[in-house]
Amino acid sequence: MTAPRFDTILITGAAGRLGTQLRRGLAPLARHLRLTDRVAIADLQPNESAHIAELADEAAMRALCEGVDAIVHFGGAPMERPWEEVLNSSIRGSYHIYEGARKAGVKRVVYASSVHAIGYHRLEDQIDAHSPHRPDGLYGLSKCFVEDLGRLYWDKFGIETVALRIFSSFPEPADRRMLWSWLSFEDCIRLVTAALTAPRVGFTVSFGMSDNSVKPVDNRLANHLGYHPQDSAEPFRAGVEARTPMPDPKAPAVQCLGGWFVDLGHPDDEAAK
Amino acid sequence: MTAPRFDTILITGAAGRLGTQLRRGLAPLARHLRLTDRVAIADLQPNESAHIAELADEAAMRALCEGVDAIVHFGGAPMERPWEEVLNSSIRGSYHIYEGARKAGVKRVVYASSVHAIGYHRLEDQIDAHSPHRPDGLYGLSKCFVEDLGRLYWDKFGIETVALRIFSSFPEPADRRMLWSWLSFEDCIRLVTAALTAPRVGFTVSFGMSDNSVKPVDNRLANHLGYHPQDSAEPFRAGVEARTPMPDPKAPAVQCLGGWFVDLGHPDDEAAK
Amino acid sequence: MTAPRFDTILITGAAGRLGTQLRRGLAPLARHLRLTDRVAIADLQPNESAHIAELADEAAMRALCEGVDAIVHFGGAPMERPWEEVLNSSIRGSYHIYEGARKAGVKRVVYASSVHAIGYHRLEDQIDAHSPHRPDGLYGLSKCFVEDLGRLYWDKFGIETVALRIFSSFPEPADRRMLWSWLSFEDCIRLVTAALTAPRVGFTVSFGMSDNSVKPVDNRLANHLGYHPQDSAEPFRAGVEARTPMPDPKAPAVQCLGGWFVDLGHPDDEAAK
Amino acid sequence: MTAPRFDTILITGAAGRLGTQLRRGLAPLARHLRLTDRVAIADLQPNESAHIAELADEAAMRALCEGVDAIVHFGGAPMERPWEEVLNSSIRGSYHIYEGARKAGVKRVVYASSVHAIGYHRLEDQIDAHSPHRPDGLYGLSKCFVEDLGRLYWDKFGIETVALRIFSSFPEPADRRMLWSWLSFEDCIRLVTAALTAPRVGFTVSFGMSDNSVKPVDNRLANHLGYHPQDSAEPFRAGVEARTPMPDPKAPAVQCLGGWFVDLGHPDDEAAK
Amino acid sequence: MTAPRFDTILITGAAGRLGTQLRRGLAPLARHLRLTDRVAIADLQPNESAHIAELADEAAMRALCEGVDAIVHFGGAPMERPWEEVLNSSIRGSYHIYEGARKAGVKRVVYASSVHAIGYHRLEDQIDAHSPHRPDGLYGLSKCFVEDLGRLYWDKFGIETVALRIFSSFPEPADRRMLWSWLSFEDCIRLVTAALTAPRVGFTVSFGMSDNSVKPVDNRLANHLGYHPQDSAEPFRAGVEARTPMPDPKAPAVQCLGGWFVDLGHPDDEAAK
Amino acid sequence: MTAPRFDTILITGAAGRLGTQLRRGLAPLARHLRLTDRVAIADLQPNESAHIAELADEAAMRALCEGVDAIVHFGGAPMERPWEEVLNSSIRGSYHIYEGARKAGVKRVVYASSVHAIGYHRLEDQIDAHSPHRPDGLYGLSKCFVEDLGRLYWDKFGIETVALRIFSSFPEPADRRMLWSWLSFEDCIRLVTAALTAPRVGFTVSFGMSDNSVKPVDNRLANHLGYHPQDSAEPFRAGVEARTPMPDPKAPAVQCLGGWFVDLGHPDDEAAK
Repeated sequence: MTAPRFDTILITGAAGRLGTQLRRGLAPLARHLRLTDRVAIADLQPNESAHIAELADEAAMRALCEGVDAIVHFGGAPMERPWEEVLNSSIRGSYHIYEGARKAGVKRVVYASSVHAIGYHRLEDQIDAHSPHRPDGLYGLSKCFVEDLGRLYWDKFGIETVALRIFSSFPEPADRRMLWSWLSFEDCIRLVTAALTAPRVGFTVSFGMSDNSVKPVDNRLANHLGYHPQDSAEPFRAGVEARTPMPDPKAPAVQCLGGWFVDLGHPDDEAAK
Repeated sequence: MTAPRFDTILITGAAGRLGTQLRRGLAPLARHLRLTDRVAIADLQPNESAHIAELADEAAMRALCEGVDAIVHFGGAPMERPWEEVLNSSIRGSYHIYEGARKAGVKRVVYASSVHAIGYHRLEDQIDAHSPHRPDGLYGLSKCFVEDLGRLYWDKFGIETVALRIFSSFPEPADRRMLWSWLSFEDCIRLVTAALTAPRVGFTVSFGMSDNSVKPVDNRLANHLGYHPQDSAEPFRAGVEARTPMPDPKAPAVQCLGGWFVDLGHPDDEAAK
Repeated sequence: MTAPRFDTILITGAAGRLGTQLRRGLAPLARHLRLTDRVAIADLQPNESAHIAELADEAAMRALCEGVDAIVHFGGAPMERPWEEVLNSSIRGSYHIYEGARKAGVKRVVYASSVHAIGYHRLEDQIDAHSPHRPDGLYGLSKCFVEDLGRLYWDKFGIETVALRIFSSFPEPADRRMLWSWLSFEDCIRLVTAALTAPRVGFTVSFGMSDNSVKPVDNRLANHLGYHPQDSAEPFRAGVEARTPMPDPKAPAVQCLGGWFVDLGHPDDEAAK
Repeated sequence: MTAPRFDTILITGAAGRLGTQLRRGLAPLARHLRLTDRVAIADLQPNESAHIAELADEAAMRALCEGVDAIVHFGGAPMERPWEEVLNSSIRGSYHIYEGARKAGVKRVVYASSVHAIGYHRLEDQIDAHSPHRPDGLYGLSKCFVEDLGRLYWDKFGIETVALRIFSSFPEPADRRMLWSWLSFEDCIRLVTAALTAPRVGFTVSFGMSDNSVKPVDNRLANHLGYHPQDSAEPFRAGVEARTPMPDPKAPAVQCLGGWFVDLGHPDDEAAK
Repeated sequence: MTAPRFDTILITGAAGRLGTQLRRGLAPLARHLRLTDRVAIADLQPNESAHIAELADEAAMRALCEGVDAIVHFGGAPMERPWEEVLNSSIRGSYHIYEGARKAGVKRVVYASSVHAIGYHRLEDQIDAHSPHRPDGLYGLSKCFVEDLGRLYWDKFGIETVALRIFSSFPEPADRRMLWSWLSFEDCIRLVTAALTAPRVGFTVSFGMSDNSVKPVDNRLANHLGYHPQDSAEPFRAGVEARTPMPDPKAPAVQCLGGWFVDLGHPDDEAAK
Repeated sequence: MTAPRFDTILITGAAGRLGTQLRRGLAPLARHLRLTDRVAIADLQPNESAHIAELADEAAMRALCEGVDAIVHFGGAPMERPWEEVLNSSIRGSYHIYEGARKAGVKRVVYASSVHAIGYHRLEDQIDAHSPHRPDGLYGLSKCFVEDLGRLYWDKFGIETVALRIFSSFPEPADRRMLWSWLSFEDCIRLVTAALTAPRVGFTVSFGMSDNSVKPVDNRLANHLGYHPQDSAEPFRAGVEARTPMPDPKAPAVQCLGGWFVDLGHPDDEAAK
């Protein structure tokens, strides 16, 4: 790719762990990156503009969508949080993004869904993108909601969505589960790039993992994206195994795709403590 | 069934079109029916208690769930409505119901989902309960959300849910589409009764139609409910056809399960007019 | 159904075994039946007009399609025949019919396909309408061709087709195979009526059998037609079994849906004898 | 059916609960019933001959298979038993039957498999005959073995088998599970009759239940047998429910097809007590 | 492969774009290549013989099939053409080839089917070889016909066929669609070689594409061919994208596998202009 | 992997062709290998202990299971053998192993199942691990039995099993079938290692082949094992093809996965000669 394909891409959650990587990784794709987050965004580059705003702020979100060619929607609560926060940032916030896209004529949204939208399925079930939702918490529930929102906006309003069910995107695998769930930052960039540039996506769901040895899901239904991971958790295996005990295959957190999320209690109970 | 199976059943949306029928139809199943709606409930019977409350009122909903054996959740926005109303009544309200059920130890919820959760699928696709969500509006989107909510509360908290994707439940078929989508009031009662009394449901999705001649979906995945419709739209066919024109098979509202919902614009645009 | 739904229906093969039945059976559906066959049509009724013509006569077929609302295409070689005859009557002839429909704006075609389009599948495979073609002779091959032709004319030109894979439609079951393959004349009429009047068919394939006890295929993918057979081969069982030997379950003609067609040699070899 | 279809049918387990019913029910199908069991068979009829023998007695079994047209193999351990008994009666014994069939040229075997061959599947999974084996004990394990044995003898030696996965065949439903698992004696006879007389079965697996309201499995893959149950557990529902408590939907014995078999410990442990 | 596997291979369409490549690529597989086309074949090599003939010439085709070990059937109308031409060259012509193969005892045919046999399926549907035919024109319709013809000749006459649904085989990718549909000439040779030499094919359908990044179909059902593409359209991406505009994902020609063929009108209309 | 993951692994059949390879290959995984076979085990290493015993010796097997972390069960009749031998070594013997595992609290068993458990499926059917059993002899039948035994011990007793359906594991491909069925010894070691170390297997079935060009089955349902073959039969192709004739694609031994096993008669007949 020599010339940028897009004039302006909007990135939500741009100050987050993945948002920060995407700023670097997506820069070649667009002349301009419009960034937004609820907190300040560091190290702004010449090709970037930054806008601090809450996703729950409908007017702000609509304004941010004006004039963009594509939206990379990685904002919202980044983990299991109390209901009110999930509701406002992820559910209402994502609605504001899609409404912004609709009103501004944006053609494609790439959304950071999550393994936690299907966290109660088991590894040996080898699910694919047509398997039913099985969220493992309020966080995952909000991811299901936004996937359905994307489906609606494609069927009714012709806005394409790629929902990326990201497994575990961290600098390196931090525990034994990440030996199969890890998505390297570079592969995350490859995945978002593929989702932005594939010729036709309609509404497509793709799992997001690196080329790890153990593969717990079947991603063939997203082969039209052209995503080809190039990293693997294998180089980290010895280290991870040396510092963590062998897992119990019967523990819910080992049998389920969602890992320890399935062991979490209700976040409102936690918040009430 | 000679003796009531339940002590108390909570019915939400009890003043609505279907809620009113369920009061009559479910009476033999429980010693007591606890009714709630946002508006007054007429003709209260000795076996009933009525509670006017908004679903969005969390404390009220929690109180209503105390001491009930099962919840028949038919409340929420009854059709396509602006986002804020859908969000508050259907999304937030249903969350309050499930939280109420969880805190009060209620074991089963029967939920009025809708054909509009899968409205963009076509008749000739003959989908079943495992086919992906394809909502046809904000109303359907909220139905998808509550189905996923029920799935979560089963997987994580052990509360069973039957999500009934009701097609068109009216006194009689009002148009040509209802010749295949109609659910008679008596069959609706049979369906809710089956969902309440089946020995094991886990999380089950069932389509809700009478035994009409044209069958546009495959309901075999709900055969463990023991629902057997006994009514049919056929006796109404001649009348309906006499007063309505032949449909155009290529019109979206004819090809899609959701009918004319797929032709609706965005409800917020409508509301803004 | 009190009033005719159609003004004019064109029936091809109208002098044939089934065409003769359809004249009687479809009469209530249309004000006028336009009949065509390569041979004379007996006992013309006031609501009928007859036109002797070869399907291979393109100009004649186009003229016959003018001004009709639906086509019931039952013409063409009625059994295994030499290639040139199959090619001219069934392949070229059916092309003429679809071209006639396209030029005249006819909206729906009901086509007499056959079990012989899938004759090499076995009973215990319980195939459905999505299973691949497996023709058992040139006759079946031409049926596959016309099914694909109908699929093309739906996808490209918006003409709906119901392809009826008729098993064995005779006055009564004549052999042991027909105890499961029989389609009574009355059920054949019900099936064509359903195919003509279903609200939406797109391109639909339906198997055509009566409500026989042994059911060798799964017809659920055509449930939107609203076809409900009311006859059965069972009353004929004792008679058939008394006069025919028990079949060998390992004989190809017993194991395959196509029956004795799978034992036939090549018709051109037969013709050359 | 006026004349018997078979000269001689061999029934194993003929003194058992179901064997006794089959003697009566299958009498019209054959001129002669050859009966065998390990215990004495009461009330021998003129059309019957009785042979006391162990299934583990290879020579006896081979002799019994000589000159029979079909075998109805209902013998073997009738419930969870210690390994040695299961091994000898069900595994070795069934091998003797199939070897007897092979050497004597018997063309079809109808085998009493069991729900316990797939007992760990859940009701809401709505499995069909292609779903993998999931035995719930040694009894079920032996049923899986004999199904595979039948598959082998069909593929390799051309002997047809219908494996009937009988759920609960008793005089009447004895507990709440039997409200969905019950197979009446008359329906059991209908099922075996269908399996014996269907024109082509190859190797077919059929679930065996009456026409109960709650249907926990999908039997469509056996539709070529022509089995149509005519009884139902519904008339017994009120009585059963009155004398048994409501089940806990989360109990393994309620969620699994195998019922209380899944709660059993290892039979060898029990035997050692 | 050191020694030729075949004595003589017949190649139809040998003067065409792909036929020319196959002459070179298949030379190591056979001692002799018998070539045929309707036009003159240039640069004849010592291992080749050339025969100018129309596929519609039955006698010529039969003579050409005498004494060959395998047929690589790439002849027939190479694109959308008027009906009479498609009928004569592709439908009648292919029938002549299969009849020739049958009479001469040829054991395997490798047929150049096309993406246009399934052109109306969409990229995101990720179809496989069992998905139904959806031709996108008369050209694709004739490909469907020949696939069914091959299926018949396998089931009935034991002649194996591999139908290769070639996507876009050109010297290099010429437009954006070819970035996913391209089949390099070398990969085309690999594919035909695999189809000729696989130990067992029965009737197998394989998609024909290079190892491009975006993969719009699932070819796993042809894994027994042993085809492993080694080329990719990626090196051509920058050039293609620089000289062609971004596609509209909602345009039929972008959403459908068949590309711009789905936008074509009826070829007879075109011819009539 | 730097440190051994296991203290002690039990290997049955340790003197056999594959057992010998596994002793070498699994050495890095465990501090100690406990070996057993019915015959003497050569070249014992310091990390090994050897125990000569019959699998049919229940007490011996139970003792051997004491104190081991995992069992690699490769013992039992290694090919088609008379019934009594299959029964005693493979069926009874494997039962003893699983009972030993249960009593000793062993957590995982890796079992050498075989292609012969599914030998009657055809290459072009591209079966996966959920396809039904189709054993091709008594040997394969015993493999089916032990798979079901493993399934039971997982569902009921929580012992994980990986059943490896090994195709042809020999020093090098010996015939044309092995060009697709070959599993190199090194890949066999990789496969067993993956099965022992995968984080979660429950009950998993995996096919066992090297990365050969022709792939006759679909192994995607075992992707959570992390098995990645690194060898291929291709380097042996020229040699094998030079010394063996071309196969007949219609021969049962060519069309079926089980190869020449499907041509074998009954082993008891052979033994009786």
